[in-house]
Amino acid sequence: MIKKCVYSFGGGKAEGKAEMKNLLGGKGANLAEMSRLGIPVPPGFTITTEVCTYFMKNNGKYPKELEGEVGSAIQKVEQIMGLKFADPKSPLLFSVRSGARQSMPGMMETVLNVGLTESTIPGLIAKSGNERFVYDAYRRLIMMYSDVVMEKAARIESKEGTAIRGLLEKEMHKMKQAKGVKDDTELDTDDLKKLVKIFKNKIKQVLKKDFPDDPYKQLWGAIDAVFRSWNGRRAIAYRRIEGIPDEWGTAVNVQTMVFGNMGDNSATGVAFTRDPATGENKFYGEFLVNAQGEDVVAGIRTPQAVNEVSKTDASKHLPSLEKLMPTLYKQLFDIRNKLEKHYADMQDVEFTIQDGQLLMLQTRVGKRNGVAAIRMAVEMHKEKLISQEEAILRVKPEQLDELLHPMLDPKSEKSAKILAKGLPAGPGGGIGQAVFTADDAESWAKKSKKVILIRDETSPEDVHGMKPAQAILTAKGGMTSHAALVARGWGKCCIVGCGALNIDVSKRQMTVNGKTIKEGDWISLNGTKGIIYEGKIDLLPADPEKNEYYKTLMKWADKYRKLGVRTNADNPEDSKLARKFGAEGIGLTRTEHMFFGPDRITPMREMILAEDETGRKKALKKLLPLQRSDFIGIFKAMDGLPVTIRTLDPPLHEFLPQDSAAQKETAKQLNISVNAVKVKVQSLHELNPMLGHRGCRLGITYPEITVMQAQAIIEAACAVAKKGIKVYPEIMIPLIGTKEELENQRKVVIDIAEKVMKKEGIKVDYLVGTMIEIPRAALTADRIAEVAEFFSFGTNDLTQMGFGYSRDDAGKFLPEYIEKQILPNDPFQTLDQEGIGQLVEIGIQKGRKTRSTLKVGICGEHGGDPRSIDFCHRVNMNYVSCSPFRVPIARLSAAHAALKQGK
Amino acid sequence: MIKKCVYSFGGGKAEGKAEMKNLLGGKGANLAEMSRLGIPVPPGFTITTEVCTYFMKNNGKYPKELEGEVGSAIQKVEQIMGLKFADPKSPLLFSVRSGARQSMPGMMETVLNVGLTESTIPGLIAKSGNERFVYDAYRRLIMMYSDVVMEKAARIESKEGTAIRGLLEKEMHKMKQAKGVKDDTELDTDDLKKLVKIFKNKIKQVLKKDFPDDPYKQLWGAIDAVFRSWNGRRAIAYRRIEGIPDEWGTAVNVQTMVFGNMGDNSATGVAFTRDPATGENKFYGEFLVNAQGEDVVAGIRTPQAVNEVSKTDASKHLPSLEKLMPTLYKQLFDIRNKLEKHYADMQDVEFTIQDGQLLMLQTRVGKRNGVAAIRMAVEMHKEKLISQEEAILRVKPEQLDELLHPMLDPKSEKSAKILAKGLPAGPGGGIGQAVFTADDAESWAKKSKKVILIRDETSPEDVHGMKPAQAILTAKGGMTSHAALVARGWGKCCIVGCGALNIDVSKRQMTVNGKTIKEGDWISLNGTKGIIYEGKIDLLPADPEKNEYYKTLMKWADKYRKLGVRTNADNPEDSKLARKFGAEGIGLTRTEHMFFGPDRITPMREMILAEDETGRKKALKKLLPLQRSDFIGIFKAMDGLPVTIRTLDPPLHEFLPQDSAAQKETAKQLNISVNAVKVKVQSLHELNPMLGHRGCRLGITYPEITVMQAQAIIEAACAVAKKGIKVYPEIMIPLIGTKEELENQRKVVIDIAEKVMKKEGIKVDYLVGTMIEIPRAALTADRIAEVAEFFSFGTNDLTQMGFGYSRDDAGKFLPEYIEKQILPNDPFQTLDQEGIGQLVEIGIQKGRKTRSTLKVGICGEHGGDPRSIDFCHRVNMNYVSCSPFRVPIARLSAAHAALKQGK
Repeated sequence: MIKKCVYSFGGGKAEGKAEMKNLLGGKGANLAEMSRLGIPVPPGFTITTEVCTYFMKNNGKYPKELEGEVGSAIQKVEQIMGLKFADPKSPLLFSVRSGARQSMPGMMETVLNVGLTESTIPGLIAKSGNERFVYDAYRRLIMMYSDVVMEKAARIESKEGTAIRGLLEKEMHKMKQAKGVKDDTELDTDDLKKLVKIFKNKIKQVLKKDFPDDPYKQLWGAIDAVFRSWNGRRAIAYRRIEGIPDEWGTAVNVQTMVFGNMGDNSATGVAFTRDPATGENKFYGEFLVNAQGEDVVAGIRTPQAVNEVSKTDASKHLPSLEKLMPTLYKQLFDIRNKLEKHYADMQDVEFTIQDGQLLMLQTRVGKRNGVAAIRMAVEMHKEKLISQEEAILRVKPEQLDELLHPMLDPKSEKSAKILAKGLPAGPGGGIGQAVFTADDAESWAKKSKKVILIRDETSPEDVHGMKPAQAILTAKGGMTSHAALVARGWGKCCIVGCGALNIDVSKRQMTVNGKTIKEGDWISLNGTKGIIYEGKIDLLPADPEKNEYYKTLMKWADKYRKLGVRTNADNPEDSKLARKFGAEGIGLTRTEHMFFGPDRITPMREMILAEDETGRKKALKKLLPLQRSDFIGIFKAMDGLPVTIRTLDPPLHEFLPQDSAAQKETAKQLNISVNAVKVKVQSLHELNPMLGHRGCRLGITYPEITVMQAQAIIEAACAVAKKGIKVYPEIMIPLIGTKEELENQRKVVIDIAEKVMKKEGIKVDYLVGTMIEIPRAALTADRIAEVAEFFSFGTNDLTQMGFGYSRDDAGKFLPEYIEKQILPNDPFQTLDQEGIGQLVEIGIQKGRKTRSTLKVGICGEHGGDPRSIDFCHRVNMNYVSCSPFRVPIARLSAAHAALKQGK
Repeated sequence: MIKKCVYSFGGGKAEGKAEMKNLLGGKGANLAEMSRLGIPVPPGFTITTEVCTYFMKNNGKYPKELEGEVGSAIQKVEQIMGLKFADPKSPLLFSVRSGARQSMPGMMETVLNVGLTESTIPGLIAKSGNERFVYDAYRRLIMMYSDVVMEKAARIESKEGTAIRGLLEKEMHKMKQAKGVKDDTELDTDDLKKLVKIFKNKIKQVLKKDFPDDPYKQLWGAIDAVFRSWNGRRAIAYRRIEGIPDEWGTAVNVQTMVFGNMGDNSATGVAFTRDPATGENKFYGEFLVNAQGEDVVAGIRTPQAVNEVSKTDASKHLPSLEKLMPTLYKQLFDIRNKLEKHYADMQDVEFTIQDGQLLMLQTRVGKRNGVAAIRMAVEMHKEKLISQEEAILRVKPEQLDELLHPMLDPKSEKSAKILAKGLPAGPGGGIGQAVFTADDAESWAKKSKKVILIRDETSPEDVHGMKPAQAILTAKGGMTSHAALVARGWGKCCIVGCGALNIDVSKRQMTVNGKTIKEGDWISLNGTKGIIYEGKIDLLPADPEKNEYYKTLMKWADKYRKLGVRTNADNPEDSKLARKFGAEGIGLTRTEHMFFGPDRITPMREMILAEDETGRKKALKKLLPLQRSDFIGIFKAMDGLPVTIRTLDPPLHEFLPQDSAAQKETAKQLNISVNAVKVKVQSLHELNPMLGHRGCRLGITYPEITVMQAQAIIEAACAVAKKGIKVYPEIMIPLIGTKEELENQRKVVIDIAEKVMKKEGIKVDYLVGTMIEIPRAALTADRIAEVAEFFSFGTNDLTQMGFGYSRDDAGKFLPEYIEKQILPNDPFQTLDQEGIGQLVEIGIQKGRKTRSTLKVGICGEHGGDPRSIDFCHRVNMNYVSCSPFRVPIARLSAAHAALKQGK
């Protein structure tokens, strides 16, 4: 049962408030809140998300109470406005917009000018004194309504090419050609009147329905269409990416229409209370005189800056609002201050000036890139707007990613050929092959190609291709255009408004300042400066340590987090980098990577191809000094910190050459017959290598491999210890499924370790532990912990086996599973807490039951995923381990987890 | 701490008793028990299994107390016997034998005549008045002792060819050749005296040690060797097969030597209190006059029957003990009655007649084949010896196997060429290719070949080849020979003592009555009659229903069991067979098998190769009537019983041709390009198909497949229901990992089912449920049970994923894992209760939490494994499902489980 379907706002009062976002959506709740704060908003009402849920569940039916409540709400608006909906004399017009809990910009539908009919037109002409304006509004309504309500809402998605919107635009284009004009504004009242007739005929012809001439029919059609657009293809795709649950639903906001296009005393704009690109505490925005709201965001005309500090290269010659309408600017600036103080966060606002009157259409928490988020959080705490805890929570861990992303190498940039310049919408460097459609971007990226998506402008339909692209480049649009907003949200390199680009999508190429760039050609983007280069420029690793705000924030985060953060690193370089990023040790060194070097692969192959233990031992003897020196390098880099080293894990066939030529070469090198190589390759072939002869199973059948590796580790540890380096090796046996396996390998390790230390005359502290990556290991963790000094959850394999998904093959059905909502997300990216998480919890609980001091960590890729880290915190792990570049993200995520649990 | 190391027996008294088997081993406990019962046994003492465990753990050291306790025990024996160990005048000799909790015949060592030295020889000659006998005993001691104690115990296993035993036998052979005699008995006293000297020199030369001339040194050496033989290779291999834990250890029995070879008034024999081959209540045994104990079992001479009813074709012309020594036979017969009444079970006894005096050397529960076990159990209950529950528990479920094994087709037998006849040691029919060594049998069998192992005689060294053989055939030995005993224990077809065989192992062939049989040639055995045929004879399915004892026992078992028993069957024939065997429904019908028939594989391939849904639907339409008729046949066969049908499970690539020629053929049949076939095969290739696109994942991406299958099932159900057949289809979706998957497929099934029933105008009861075979499914069973009406545990896949073992690849390390005791047994044969069992328990508990009426079964191969069935009972499953031939085994196992839990 729904208690109340509709919440009114306006006239300095409101039934809703900011806290009611779940019910009213973000837009509706904030309109109510602004109204309460005495900020001028066009009055209106919000139909709740509960109604949306009801509507979806009941096959497009509304609760009985809705109609009556909408009626009363309209009356309230009429009273405030002194106008009447559907009244021929003083008609009231409405906008009908979506508004979900979380902003989904452009993903759902909007209908404007609702209430204009043959009978209300004269009234509006009389009131506005502007016949052309009214007919322009009417033709806009017809175009929008026929598209959104009459076509899309009826079949949800129409086929491109036959869509009504395109047909109507073609008619308008024809009329402009006939008149020999270029701009819509050049069509006069009579033209528009004719156009309206042509539109209505076309609609009747194509959609077999009349354009409704009843304001109420228009209103309900629009409400219906907005609710339905929650389940449109774009909205669903966006929710998948952003992880928004389907059951949230959208609210519908019905609000008095205001017009920024009533003449030169009207305007419309968007603004941010602080700079969303840098985080600097300055009011930042854009506007257009005599324009409809959508025009600013769409990037069709170059917008003007709201004030002098907002001016860019593109807008520097245009007057700012500050200069043009100083009183109104002052009023806007006061609202800006009021809002930021009230919300204690940077706000993204939309405003319209209708005939000299300022009205706020929206306020919401503004999207910002990582650099800006960090600066705002730190500064707002220093300004005493927010607490330190809140400051930490203000920065999404993923936002750090962009600070950690590489930049174009400035030296290479100097000598590189500049193609063009644009607006720097997303910082960092991006290098990739040019593609010209979102579909191409998606399919190239699937083949592991790095691409840069180049578009005239982007729209919500392009999101699926923007996500996998290295960077985004558009010819049109400003800093608040779709491309800029989306890229900023993701922390992706992005340049917009690069007018020099001349894109021909059908030919899959563009010309830019005389140069032709074809699909597949490499280009490089400096998103921080907005420069596009020809070819492939070197990328420099990120250096977040130069950012003082970042350093402050991370210091705060480290104070609150309880989880340790280690890194996965296989060499001294990565180890050093991770340490710089704050890693407190190594959680996973994969030794197998060390066997692929040109000096190692031959003895490795010799070992595998040996006929017996003696032969294997001979080859292993050659590998021993190489492994030892690897470990010495890593131990030196991690002086004073623990280093977890995993013994050989992959099946042996991975080390053997698979094609004939390479097999011949190997046979020659090792002085054995080609047939012997072929026979071995064949005998090592497995039907399901994931579940085959690998991990500790290798160490058990060939203990000499474990002996060599343990010897190399302990010899290296002794060598560096003698030089005064503090070394804490943790030897990790992979793929343990039974206590007995670990017992077997532990004995092998300890025997050789004792022997080495005795010979070297020095003791080093070392641990022997295991990966928990097999379901059975988690289930019998109590027994395994009897012989394991630490556990590290290998959640990649645990997910593979727990779900029965081969990571290499699951691509055939996983995307469809996510599409069909069988899975909420890719379990290889975010740990499946419901299922696999149980194994982790069982493993930790049971393990600590028999060994209370058991050290527990995670070294799967989930160790760098914020949602998974939150889980790791809640199940009381000691640390997470992730790739070097994700170490700061893990640190911040761990702080978030601790703060959220404290709440 | 060990309280008491040694337990004495003899003279009508004993410190131990039958219940102390764990401590004294079977032999020791029963010797004590016989002594208590007043049955004549040679006095002696038992060193406990605890001493063995101590000895193993302490690197071959004994508890301090042992020596003193052995001393006192020897004194007790001396008092009873009026002889003295190591005394030159009236020397006492000992046998030293192993004796574990569970009989391990021939797997450990024995030393006889311990205490004979240069100084005790004259005393024994004086007492026995038989110098030749004494020297023969002495040379036997030397041969045995040098082999068992001086060589084997020192290095555990000696290398063939250089073993001391062989060298000494060669010396004896040389002496016989020099004298021109053939039999050992033809060597006279002087020969033996010489031989003893030659032996001692050879031992000194080869082993660099003197043969010990101190009785105590001999005794302790022998005790040591017997304990050590617990860890001999043979003993370990046997324990693996029989599932005997290593930590049990063996006891050592030191017992006064008695001699069955002191002349014609002496004898030695073995007997069973009932016929071990048929179970008939008649005293059955064999003996040899003037022979040592081992001679009977070794099968060197053809033994005589103990009584007239025991006579066989081989012994019918030889006098029985009953005729030869009627008084002693009467005494033996009385002991037989006493023992059987006392133990309430069939006993296997060894006896010796020493110079007219009957002495019992051993009694133990006799091994018997399945037919005999059933008859004995039923008859003993009718004789009021045992309760009905006990009767059920007396028959091992696996023993039913042999009743269920096929027999040679009598019609084909009539026209087949008989090669030879032998003793019918193991009933049933056996067909296979001839192999002549145990190693060959093992390696051929590993390649899935059916072999018959042919040997002169078998020894414990052959056990690893006897197990995988279809049948065993020996040239030598009687019904109590090694081959006969072992085969009987396993219920395997076996013919022994076939003197016509002339085997040449080196040439891997034999000649038999003029015909040469080479390795790989097919032969057929009728183990019930003892006839060997040339070539491959048809096998007839077993018909246990003709055995009244079996029927009685199964009726009793059904009364006690709580688990239902279903079968896995894919066609009407198997369904009928299983129903005859007592199946109460079908637990698993694999629909994919139905697609491999020549009329089905082409439309199946057409479906897979179709370009789109329309193409797939067209092909599926062709498969629909075929599937429907399959189900009609099965439903008819299972009238009144539930039938669980699983939708398509294997990955699609399994249905496509893999080689070029077949691909061409398919392309031609379907009128598409070869390239299209190749491309499809390639695109379906998976790195780990076990974890790939299969099971419900197929049904979700191609719902039309599920639709077709569900339609076929419900249409078939409607069709038979109209004919008055009671049909209960249970539609089972495989490989479910999440509730959402099942929800998706359940909807597909229900939608089409409702449609079909509406069209047919009839309602059938059907259920929709799932396999639980993915770890995650077990962990989230509470959610899955919200939409599943039944669970069937697919423990094959659950084991694969829970352990991370690919069944197809695990052969590379599983045998070694079992060898090294990392796993107690093959988890694909017997459910791993410790690990995978937890998933089953969790799944059942959680499933029943949200659906208390949830029907739960198992359809993996574990459903037919007695130990796993016991587990299924304990975790409260509703039923187990297994192959038709294992249905009776499952019924009996389920009764065992219920009875054991009741205890």
